[in-house]
Amino acid sequence: MQIDIPEVKAEVEDAFARYETALVTNDVETLEALFHDDGRTIRYGGGENLYGMDAIRAFRRARAPVGLARSPARTLVTTYGRDFAVASTLFYRDNAPGRVGRQQQTWVRFPEGWRVVAAHVSVIAEPDMAE
Amino acid sequence: MQIDIPEVKAEVEDAFARYETALVTNDVETLEALFHDDGRTIRYGGGENLYGMDAIRAFRRARAPVGLARSPARTLVTTYGRDFAVASTLFYRDNAPGRVGRQQQTWVRFPEGWRVVAAHVSVIAEPDMAE
Repeated sequence: MQIDIPEVKAEVEDAFARYETALVTNDVETLEALFHDDGRTIRYGGGENLYGMDAIRAFRRARAPVGLARSPARTLVTTYGRDFAVASTLFYRDNAPGRVGRQQQTWVRFPEGWRVVAAHVSVIAEPDMAE
Repeated sequence: MQIDIPEVKAEVEDAFARYETALVTNDVETLEALFHDDGRTIRYGGGENLYGMDAIRAFRRARAPVGLARSPARTLVTTYGRDFAVASTLFYRDNAPGRVGRQQQTWVRFPEGWRVVAAHVSVIAEPDMAE
């Protein structure tokens, strides 16, 4: 299994960037399109546990489109072979000083393109830098 | 891409079960062995962000082996093809009433066996059941 084949990594980095733009602009249509439409897709969010695309869709559509701006940090996309990847990033929000968000997504290449099959978002107190 | 090929799913469920047992018994050797030994392996933990196996190893070895018992819930392993899988589970601890943990792992099959390449653990207030 080859890790980080350059053209594969570039594809996933592009998909990840489209997701990030859609997130901060609350482009719900793109956010939904980038998730795999399947009952086994899971999204653990900042305050909710969503099993299946129906639950994820309902959450997205009800979400208040405010306070979504954020600054990513230490973003890392790693690809495994040609069809699998993980994208991890920390993020900071101006309205949440002293706290750091973590977002991790598993991406799979389907005939229709790269899609997120699992995601987990959480926010914690910023750990000591010494850690 | 075939999802949930029965024998592949059984393999990952077995690896996941071994990980869970190692976690609650603080079997650090097994926990380390089940993570992919690579600088690109990431573990976002309950209170720390660990980039690379060196950081993950240092954290495991320093961790106090107390209060690790937990009850998993809504565990779901989904496999994509023969070499890639996601394992997600909620968990509850007796000493944290009203709170729910979420653990999500991405597993990849390497020549040496199934290994976690990315993990994210967080704990939040239990969402309303209506959500």
